[in-house]
Amino acid sequence: MPGIDKLPLEETLEDSPQTRSLLGVFEEDTAATSSYFSQLFKAMQRIYDAQNELSAATHLTSRLLKDYEKQRFPLGGDDEVMSSTLQQFAKVIDELSSCHAVLSTQLADAMMFPITQFQERDLREIVILKEVFQISSDDHDTAVNRYSRLSKRKENEKVKNEVMEDVYTSRKKQHETIMHYFASLNMLQYKKKIALLEPLLGYMQAQLSVSFCFWRINIISNIYRILHIALSRKTISR
Amino acid sequence: MPGIDKLPLEETLEDSPQTRSLLGVFEEDTAATSSYFSQLFKAMQRIYDAQNELSAATHLTSRLLKDYEKQRFPLGGDDEVMSSTLQQFAKVIDELSSCHAVLSTQLADAMMFPITQFQERDLREIVILKEVFQISSDDHDTAVNRYSRLSKRKENEKVKNEVMEDVYTSRKKQHETIMHYFASLNMLQYKKKIALLEPLLGYMQAQLSVSFCFWRINIISNIYRILHIALSRKTISR
Repeated sequence: MPGIDKLPLEETLEDSPQTRSLLGVFEEDTAATSSYFSQLFKAMQRIYDAQNELSAATHLTSRLLKDYEKQRFPLGGDDEVMSSTLQQFAKVIDELSSCHAVLSTQLADAMMFPITQFQERDLREIVILKEVFQISSDDHDTAVNRYSRLSKRKENEKVKNEVMEDVYTSRKKQHETIMHYFASLNMLQYKKKIALLEPLLGYMQAQLSVSFCFWRINIISNIYRILHIALSRKTISR
Repeated sequence: MPGIDKLPLEETLEDSPQTRSLLGVFEEDTAATSSYFSQLFKAMQRIYDAQNELSAATHLTSRLLKDYEKQRFPLGGDDEVMSSTLQQFAKVIDELSSCHAVLSTQLADAMMFPITQFQERDLREIVILKEVFQISSDDHDTAVNRYSRLSKRKENEKVKNEVMEDVYTSRKKQHETIMHYFASLNMLQYKKKIALLEPLLGYMQAQLSVSFCFWRINIISNIYRILHIALSRKTISR
C-alpha cells in the first residue's frame, strides 16, 4: 500500500470504520516487523555468542601454551627452545584473543544493544499500548451499554448523572489511549528503519576495528620470527 | 631428567631392570603428553566449532537481509532506498561470511587435521603397542614357566623340544614387539614437538589468510558507500 505511512491522530475521536481498517493494516505491519526482527535478533545473537566462544577458546589455547613449561614432563623438560617457541606462540595467540574480546565487546554495544532495545522496548511498548487500548475500549463499551439501557427505564437523576459521567470519562480515556497507540504505531515506521540499520552499522564498524586490531599484531612477521627462532636453534629439524 | 631422550633398542634383548625403569619414565612422559594434548585438542576444537558457528550465523544474517524485500510488509513495501541499502549490507556481510568459511576450512586442514592425526594415530599407536608388548611378555613368561617346570620332571624328547621351541618363538616375538614399542616411544619424542608446532602454525597461517580476506572486502569504503547511498536519499533522516 504505497503512500500510506501515518495513522491520523485527528480522527481518533471519531473512531470511524475507515480508521479502524487502517489500524488493522498498521497492526499487521507491526506483526510482520516483529517476526522479521525476531529472526534477525536470533541470527545476531548467534554471531555474538559464537564470537564470545571464539574469544574464550582462543584465550584458553593461549593459556595452555603458556602452561607448557609448568607441565611435569619426565623427558625433554630441559628443552628451552621448545618452551620459548611456545611462549612466542602463546603471546601472539593471546593478542589475537584480545582482538576477539574487543570484537565481542563492540558487538555487544553496537549490534546487540540497539536491536535488543528495539525488541524489548519499542516493540514491547506497542504490545502494551494495544492491551491498554483494548481495556479502555471495553470500559467505554460497558459505559455506553449501561447508558443505553438506562434511557429506556425511569431512573433517578443521581444515577443518570453518574452513568453519563462514566461515559464521558471512559470516552476520554479511550481517546487518550488510542492517540498514544496511534502515535507509537506511526513512530514505529521510522524506528524500525533505524533499528535495522543501527546494528548492521555496529556490526560493520566492529569488524573494521578488529581488522585493524588483527593487522596490528602483524601475523606474518610473527610467524617468520617464531619460525626463525625455532629453525635457527634447530628445534624442529633436530 | 636432562640428556635422556632415547630408549636403547640394542638392550631390548637383554631386557634388564635398568631398561625397564627407563621404559617407565618414557611411559610416564607419554601419559603426560597424552593428557596435555587432550586439553589442547579440546581448546582447538572449541576454536574450530566457534569459527564454524560464526560462519553459519554470519551467512544466516546475510540471507535474512537479502530476504527483506520478499517480506510481505503491508506498509513501506515501496521503500526502495531501504531495500537497496539492505542489499548492500547483505552483500558485504555475505563476503564476510565467505571469509569466515575460508577460515573454517583452513582451520580444519591446517590445525584440526594434524592434531587429530597425532591424537588418533600416533598416541593411539603407542597404546596398542603397549598392549601387544604386554601380551607377548605374558606369552613369554608362560613359556619360560612351562620350561622351568619341565626340567624338574622326566619328559619325553618330543614335548621337551616343543616347549623349547615355544620359549624361542615367544622370546623372538617379545623382542620384536619391545623393539617396535621402544622405537615408537623414541619417535614420539620428536613427533610431539611437530604435533605441537604444526597446528599452531596452521592456526596462524589461517588467521593471516583471513586477515587478507577481510582486508579485501574493504569494510571502511563499504560503510561509507552504504551510508552515502542511504543519507543522500534521506532514508535515515526522513
